[in-house]
Amino acid sequence: MSRVFNFGAGPAMLPESVMKKAQADLLDFKGLGVSVMEVSHRTNEFEELLDETTQLFRELIKLPGNYRTVFIHGGAQMQFSAVPLNLIGRNAAKKALYFETGVFAKQALEEAKRYGEIKIAASSAETGFDRIPAYDPADFDKDASYVHLTSNNTIVGTQWKTYPKTDDLPLVIDATSDILSRKVDFSQIGILFASLQKNLGPPGVALVAIREDLFGHASPYTPKLLNYELNAKNNSLINTANTFAIYMVHLVLQWLEEQGGVAAIEKHNKKKASCLYEAIDQSGFYQGFAHPDHRSIMNVPFNLPSEELLEKFLNEALEEGFYALKGHRSVGGVRASIYNPMPMEGVEGLKSFMEEFERRNG
Amino acid sequence: MSRVFNFGAGPAMLPESVMKKAQADLLDFKGLGVSVMEVSHRTNEFEELLDETTQLFRELIKLPGNYRTVFIHGGAQMQFSAVPLNLIGRNAAKKALYFETGVFAKQALEEAKRYGEIKIAASSAETGFDRIPAYDPADFDKDASYVHLTSNNTIVGTQWKTYPKTDDLPLVIDATSDILSRKVDFSQIGILFASLQKNLGPPGVALVAIREDLFGHASPYTPKLLNYELNAKNNSLINTANTFAIYMVHLVLQWLEEQGGVAAIEKHNKKKASCLYEAIDQSGFYQGFAHPDHRSIMNVPFNLPSEELLEKFLNEALEEGFYALKGHRSVGGVRASIYNPMPMEGVEGLKSFMEEFERRNG
Repeated sequence: MSRVFNFGAGPAMLPESVMKKAQADLLDFKGLGVSVMEVSHRTNEFEELLDETTQLFRELIKLPGNYRTVFIHGGAQMQFSAVPLNLIGRNAAKKALYFETGVFAKQALEEAKRYGEIKIAASSAETGFDRIPAYDPADFDKDASYVHLTSNNTIVGTQWKTYPKTDDLPLVIDATSDILSRKVDFSQIGILFASLQKNLGPPGVALVAIREDLFGHASPYTPKLLNYELNAKNNSLINTANTFAIYMVHLVLQWLEEQGGVAAIEKHNKKKASCLYEAIDQSGFYQGFAHPDHRSIMNVPFNLPSEELLEKFLNEALEEGFYALKGHRSVGGVRASIYNPMPMEGVEGLKSFMEEFERRNG
Repeated sequence: MSRVFNFGAGPAMLPESVMKKAQADLLDFKGLGVSVMEVSHRTNEFEELLDETTQLFRELIKLPGNYRTVFIHGGAQMQFSAVPLNLIGRNAAKKALYFETGVFAKQALEEAKRYGEIKIAASSAETGFDRIPAYDPADFDKDASYVHLTSNNTIVGTQWKTYPKTDDLPLVIDATSDILSRKVDFSQIGILFASLQKNLGPPGVALVAIREDLFGHASPYTPKLLNYELNAKNNSLINTANTFAIYMVHLVLQWLEEQGGVAAIEKHNKKKASCLYEAIDQSGFYQGFAHPDHRSIMNVPFNLPSEELLEKFLNEALEEGFYALKGHRSVGGVRASIYNPMPMEGVEGLKSFMEEFERRNG
């Protein structure tokens, strides 16, 4: 079948040029006559790729010099364990604050409870996670080891516009679903992590940036592959790295650089999101989930007047080549995930389809 | 460049037909118009693939019905932590026995020390890990929670021919470097695990088989993604699975089935290994590392009379299309890794090259 517009929330679409390059080189990495997945992670050829990937990431996200970056097996949910294992021992109280802004934020805080006392900094659970909750930094426990938040809620489609001022408390950002989609202010950030499978590459690995002064607090129970300091010392090569995933990240970052980097893609992403939110707001037919002030530029979930119309919409959309638009099982409806690789063409096509579907069924 | 014979110890070569199939389908998984790495792990198409992969593995390895299999992020070294986290609490003594038969066996036992009391069941450290050490099962502590061994030593090239009789103590087998290369007797085995990157697929994931009665002993500190029981309950889908790696395993297992399964490949592997050991034994030039009674059929390390000749050998071999023959940094020399996918043609070619090199330089 020909390629479709993939609106899946993750694993999500990758740029077509990246996929074609990966395909062309699949049996021959750097002219060695073997695939990147058949080459030792300790060869010069792979270590060079790893260093270039790290360097490119640092430049694109404008990472300050006092952060280290590592690739760790297992995606963001492995980080839900790794963060408290590495950081909750920073203060004797073994306490951390979590913003409860959605299903994944909740999973992160539930997992952290294994390792210390977890307090909810603020929650929007009562309104179905339709917004970023109000909070007052003056209320933050000064003896907490860190403050955790999920930058973007993929399910309801909310997003932090600016991060809270936490003073001496390091912010831990789960940026899985919006990393490199917009500029980031690192002034409060201690740790920023993201699974690869939305804006970075294929699933299975997390990219983690850690401020160097936060090393040294890992619990003795920390599995060695989850220890940030050990990973940094070994340049992500304690054990056999996921060579293929890192290779894919390299291609995606090169592609992002060609698009003009983060500032350019942010502009592009805002334009894509506006296009769909306009379609929703101009209609009396479609209804958004998120509070308009907190809308995500990565995930645009909305609903239709009835379950019958929803099913019809999803079926017809699929026939038109708009793939994976079904909303998360916890909220239903439609969800258009429009990460960096989604072209304007896909978004405009979906908007036209929405308008046309409304005309026929509204 | 054209494909070479890849003798790397891991990430190792994959069958060429598998790589070509993966290449052909890279942008279009099951006719969906998206890649397997761009598809949700919760789609029917992916779950079907996962179930088929599991089923095929069970059939090929002849796994008894009372074992569950899971894919876990992170390779064998993540299992070095996961095994004690899940199993050392089985007995109140929190004790485990480890056979020290090489560098990775040693790493496994060092990691396990975080979680309990580790005793060495037997060691061949004094003879440079050149053999499987002698042991008497009568000496095994009855209050241990398990006995760990590394089935095959990739560095020195030794291999357990039969596993010890441990009675009520469950054996934990790190089968990373010889899984599916030969028949396995499960009668003593509690857990068998393997990284993918030798006989199964690309790096980044481990395949783990666990006897069901061993569930229920996980430490409260166990990161949820490393909890065997939770992984089994969720069919390896607690979080986003490494869809691409599992897809590759599926292709490799189909290939293995086409080769006639494990009994056929074992015969083939023994023939390949004999070919190279003959070349070593018939020469006064090449010297094997491992004791002849304990030789591996997966990794054949040997040395040359001098460092100069070694360098010359490696350079000329590479020019002839024999890739990644350099021995592990801890022992030097040459290492020919001949996992399942290495064809007889590659082994015979290397043997001829060895003979010819000896004639010119011996």
